[in-house]
Amino acid sequence: MKALEEKIAREGKIFPGNIVKVSGFLNHMIDVQFMMQIGKEIADLYEGSGVNKILTIESSGIAIAVCAASYMNIPVVFAKKSKSINIANDVYSAKVASFTHKTTKDIIVSKEVLSKEDKILIIDDFLAEGNALKGLMSIVEQAGGEVKGCAIAIEKGFQGAGDKLRNEGVRVESLAIIDEMSDSSIKFREVV
Amino acid sequence: MKALEEKIAREGKIFPGNIVKVSGFLNHMIDVQFMMQIGKEIADLYEGSGVNKILTIESSGIAIAVCAASYMNIPVVFAKKSKSINIANDVYSAKVASFTHKTTKDIIVSKEVLSKEDKILIIDDFLAEGNALKGLMSIVEQAGGEVKGCAIAIEKGFQGAGDKLRNEGVRVESLAIIDEMSDSSIKFREVV
Repeated sequence: MKALEEKIAREGKIFPGNIVKVSGFLNHMIDVQFMMQIGKEIADLYEGSGVNKILTIESSGIAIAVCAASYMNIPVVFAKKSKSINIANDVYSAKVASFTHKTTKDIIVSKEVLSKEDKILIIDDFLAEGNALKGLMSIVEQAGGEVKGCAIAIEKGFQGAGDKLRNEGVRVESLAIIDEMSDSSIKFREVV
Repeated sequence: MKALEEKIAREGKIFPGNIVKVSGFLNHMIDVQFMMQIGKEIADLYEGSGVNKILTIESSGIAIAVCAASYMNIPVVFAKKSKSINIANDVYSAKVASFTHKTTKDIIVSKEVLSKEDKILIIDDFLAEGNALKGLMSIVEQAGGEVKGCAIAIEKGFQGAGDKLRNEGVRVESLAIIDEMSDSSIKFREVV
């Protein structure tokens, strides 16, 4: 998505450790008009795919998921991050390590909101090491549902997790893929 | 908002301790079509008020805020809950006690996304003891901005915090106000 690449190049900030901050429009302040364009793009990509529910993870995935859902006329479920102390019986759960925060958390989804009938589109803001995606995929699997694919705003292509999932047959659609980054520049993958 | 009262009565679940769970459509699974109606209602209430930015708090406020913002053509900022360990210099912060979780957390907003030029609409899913609202109002004050008002999906009127804020001159618009609840029933305030 050219408009997203341009916005990252213009407004994103690069920090040591291959971190690109887009908190001015994506995950702290949200440019909702722009986010609706992202949502429309995702809805177009998954048109006719049979998806009936979006699964995302708090907090940064929620805005993108809601915008996509508004075009797809389907509900959103967001997984909650839990303190890992005691996981209740009435939830599906998975362990997820955070690339940015260097911590591991349990994520949970109530059994009431996910079932074996569900055809799921997983949405998140970033794909780095793929840990959140794998956790969300595990939760859908526990529910007996089907993952129809994933949609990501920004993929760090150089970390390889997105391509690994694609090679395993998972549909992963990223709107901008960063193939290289340095302290001063970002190189995006050419999208055919 | 009659449609919200009916949805709470139909799909909400009452738990001991005056807790009403609406995780089937508001804050775990999100009925996005319905949430867009809530957003439209909020946009109508604040039309012409001069609001230029919405402030909410992760995670449950984000979906409502994004839906309202999509009608108001303004950005959303969501405050993040922090671990209270060390608050950086580049953020505004406030302490917020949670009614549901019986904990106190710091909430933070980057100084980059809030300024003295901002006319803020604060949005949240629930208003119980008013602690989140007060924390968000404090953050706007620290930034030198102006709170034009608050919009809440569900207010627990019997806890009094909403009316107290109104008596202090704060504009608080709640789409459904619960004035009484028991183990089996919910009574809503008549809205003129």
